Parts: sequence; C-alpha cells; structure tokens
Amino acid sequence: MKIAITGKGGVGKTTLAAVLAKLYAGEGYRVMAVDADPDANLAAALGFPEDKQRKIVPLSEMRELIAERTGAQPGLVGQMFTLNPKVEDIPERFCAEHEGVRLLVMGGIKKGGSGCACPEHTFLRAIMRHLLLDSKDVLIVDMEAGIEHLGRATADCVDAFIVIVEPSLKSINTYYSIRKLAAEIGVNKVLVVGNKVKDRDDENFIKNHVGADKLLGILSYDVTVEKADREGVSPFYASKQTRESIAVIKNKISQLCIANYSLMPKANF
Amino acid sequence: MKIAITGKGGVGKTTLAAVLAKLYAGEGYRVMAVDADPDANLAAALGFPEDKQRKIVPLSEMRELIAERTGAQPGLVGQMFTLNPKVEDIPERFCAEHEGVRLLVMGGIKKGGSGCACPEHTFLRAIMRHLLLDSKDVLIVDMEAGIEHLGRATADCVDAFIVIVEPSLKSINTYYSIRKLAAEIGVNKVLVVGNKVKDRDDENFIKNHVGADKLLGILSYDVTVEKADREGVSPFYASKQTRESIAVIKNKISQLCIANYSLMPKANF
Repeated sequence: MKIAITGKGGVGKTTLAAVLAKLYAGEGYRVMAVDADPDANLAAALGFPEDKQRKIVPLSEMRELIAERTGAQPGLVGQMFTLNPKVEDIPERFCAEHEGVRLLVMGGIKKGGSGCACPEHTFLRAIMRHLLLDSKDVLIVDMEAGIEHLGRATADCVDAFIVIVEPSLKSINTYYSIRKLAAEIGVNKVLVVGNKVKDRDDENFIKNHVGADKLLGILSYDVTVEKADREGVSPFYASKQTRESIAVIKNKISQLCIANYSLMPKANF
Repeated sequence: MKIAITGKGGVGKTTLAAVLAKLYAGEGYRVMAVDADPDANLAAALGFPEDKQRKIVPLSEMRELIAERTGAQPGLVGQMFTLNPKVEDIPERFCAEHEGVRLLVMGGIKKGGSGCACPEHTFLRAIMRHLLLDSKDVLIVDMEAGIEHLGRATADCVDAFIVIVEPSLKSINTYYSIRKLAAEIGVNKVLVVGNKVKDRDDENFIKNHVGADKLLGILSYDVTVEKADREGVSPFYASKQTRESIAVIKNKISQLCIANYSLMPKANF
C-alpha cells in the first residue's frame, strides 16, 4: 500500500503519518515513511533519537548526486533535467531505520536563493514509483503543505491521498482542491480525516462540508499532542487517546487500500 | 515599504496580512496586497465581496501570457525560461481593488500534473521588484506556507519578513529557517509576531524560543477570528480585539520599515 498524507499547513499531517507508520510497524508490516515536507520533522514524530536524526542525509543534501542523475544544475530556477533518473539504489543507501520504520527525508531548502525544489521532487517521485510493495509493505508519505506537489505530480503513484481537515473553511477548500487535482494525476481514492475537533459544532462543521460518508474518522483536539510537539516527543507515545483513535482509522485505511495487494510481487526495499 | 508575511502553514499569515493592509489603507496609504499563497484566500480576508472575488484573474490563469513573457512552456517541470520577464503593465491590468486596497493574486495549481509554479514565482518576483514605492505606499505579500519560496528568492526585494509563530516547536523551527534563508537572499530584517497565544505558558514559550526583543507583538487566541474564517468574513471586521492588537504591531512595523522611504520617488502602481 502506498498512501500520502496531505492537507493545508498545520492540520496535523506529520502526527497522523507518524502514528500510522508506528501502528503498522507494530503489526509486523514493513514500513517505509517518507518525509516530503521541507518544513516538518517526521523523524522526531517517529521517535527517532537525536543521534539517529543527525545521521539522516536528506535528498536536499544530495544535490550533487541528484545533479549527476538528473542533469539538473544546483542553484537554478528554470532549467531542463531528466524526469526519469536512476534511483534503484537510493532507498537502500539513504534510509534511516528506527523501531521497524524506515525513513527517507526530502529535506529543507539549504540556502536562500539556491533554486527551486523541482529536481528533488522529480527524484522523490522516481523513488516512490520505483518501490514495488506486497500486501505486508506500507509506504506512507508526509507531503508538504498545500497543493504545489500536485502540479508536480510528486505522489502520483499512491493508492490514496489521506487529506486532513480541521474545522476551518480554508482547510476544507484545500481538501476540495486536492480532490480535484488528485483525480487529474490519476489518484481517485481521496479519504478524509477530521482533526482538532473541540466540540459537536466542530464535528458537524466538518461533516457538513465534507460529507459524513467521506470521513475515515475524527480526531479530537488533544492538548497532549500539542505539548508533545513542543517537547520533541513522538505523539505515538505521548497520547493514548490519539493513538487509539488513529488505530481505528488505520483499520479503515487497510480495508480500503490493502486488499488489492495480495497478488503483488515482493517489495524491493 | 515592502513586507512579506511568512511562517509555517496555519499560523495566521493571511489574517495578519489582511488586517495590516486594511489598517494602512484606513490611514491613507496606497496599499498593494499580493496573495502569493496558492492555498489561501486573501481576497476573502480583505473583505472583497464575492462578485469582485470572482472577477480577479490570478497569475496562475495567465499561463499563456507568462509563457509569452518568460518563454516557459505550460505543463512542464524542468525547463528553461527567462528570469527577467517584462511586467510593467501587469499591476495596472490585473489588480482588483476594494476599500483602498489593491490586490494581485498568484492563484492555485490549476490542474494536477500541470507542472511546477516556477514560472509564476519568477513572474511575481519581477512584478514586486519592479514596483517603486514612496513613503505613503505599502506592499504587503501574503507568502505561501513553508520555505521553498526562499530557495526561489520570490520576495528578495522586501524590506522585511514578518514571521508569524504559534506556541509550537515546528513553527519556531520554521522561523529560524526563514531567518537564515532570508539573510542569504539579502533580507536582514526579520521580525516576529506571536499568534494563537492562550495563556502565560504559551507566551513564555514563544518569548523563550524567539527572544522577547525580536517580537513585534503577541496576538491572543481569538475564537472570533476562527469563526469569521468559517463564515468567510474578514477578520478586520469580525474582531475588534485582533484588529486593535494588530494596530499596535503595525505602528512598530512603520517605525522599523517606513522611515527610509522619505526620499524615494513616487510609486508606479
């Protein structure tokens, strides 16, 4: 199964991606997590200890390697490069691992004015497309905020987008943008998780705007998760409530997305 | 004065940009607002009525014009185009206006897989650099979430970045990333506004992580602003509390950023 967690900035993508990854790993799945948000820290949310975090080499620091494979010139906006670079060796060489979750990190912008992230997105897209998974393999991508990745079709190989919404019109609008754009890159399964729900009004707001049948589940506003984020602690360990709510959502995702994989060949990561 | 409002997704960039724009317009400044976030709606936050909103032509819908001026081919990632397109006529032709605020909109991703937003960013950068402002002119840019725009140096002409942080480690990390990257594109004035502060602990968290001397001000968590967002109402009209807090911040921004403009030539928008 390949899924991408997406939505407006600040809705809780990294929390959901991390807790899902750890739940699947705990059940014996082979899990690869991809941190594709240049402005997030999935490693911390997955509970990677600091020494392991420091050793991770993000794609954004492989500019020479990416330049060599794609033909892109680091430091430019507006240039030609190949869209099909060789990537077979990348997951093996550059994944970090902690408690059964392998992690590949896209990385941030290294230097102001150093160019766009198009070559890195192209590279990441090739890596994700290259991975062949079987029914006990899970790829979970924590996408960058917003919708530009859908123009770039970075995650066009996934089985489903999981869009997180909070009780705000902006996040609902982002959901509808993602739904439309995802269909245009061939991803027709777009599922929704409500987050930061404080009361019945919030819940109804989301249900009325998204449709109750589209919702995988609702996560209550959880001050423990907020505090864990401040302290750099994984939400998986910090909040039993959020962990258990996401476990229910995980089961629904499995029903909707894993069934098709039983006849797939063995994964190559 | 040219300023860009920036920060992690969901921290309140659009609210601050809109209220600042309306406050400056109310004092007789000539204000141009730029919505550079493909996943926001500054027009709604500025109180543009729906019929005016519908008439706005965003840059993302001018792909033919941008292609003509830059040489970019719509629908591609990885291509060459000129970084200095002709833009003198764009503000005049494509700005909408409401209650003294002129608005230019970058626009969203129109179609999944339709390419990156590099040509649009290049075009927007050229427009913002082209504008010459005098001491009674204000350009306020509501930047997209995150930090990729700093790789592209989209807003390298501004006098200051105003970074909004909320009481979370992630948003603080984004601030420090922005600070470093901004210096690398030549913007050394990086000011901070705290937002969504619920209590003394939240306030201290921000002060301890940012430094009290770096803060322009702190905005309390305001349920009225949240509700206004749901209803598509401008926060300027919805919340006296937030409006008044931002007025104090505006005065500090003016002191820090407008003084230098007294000898500048007249603006050309």
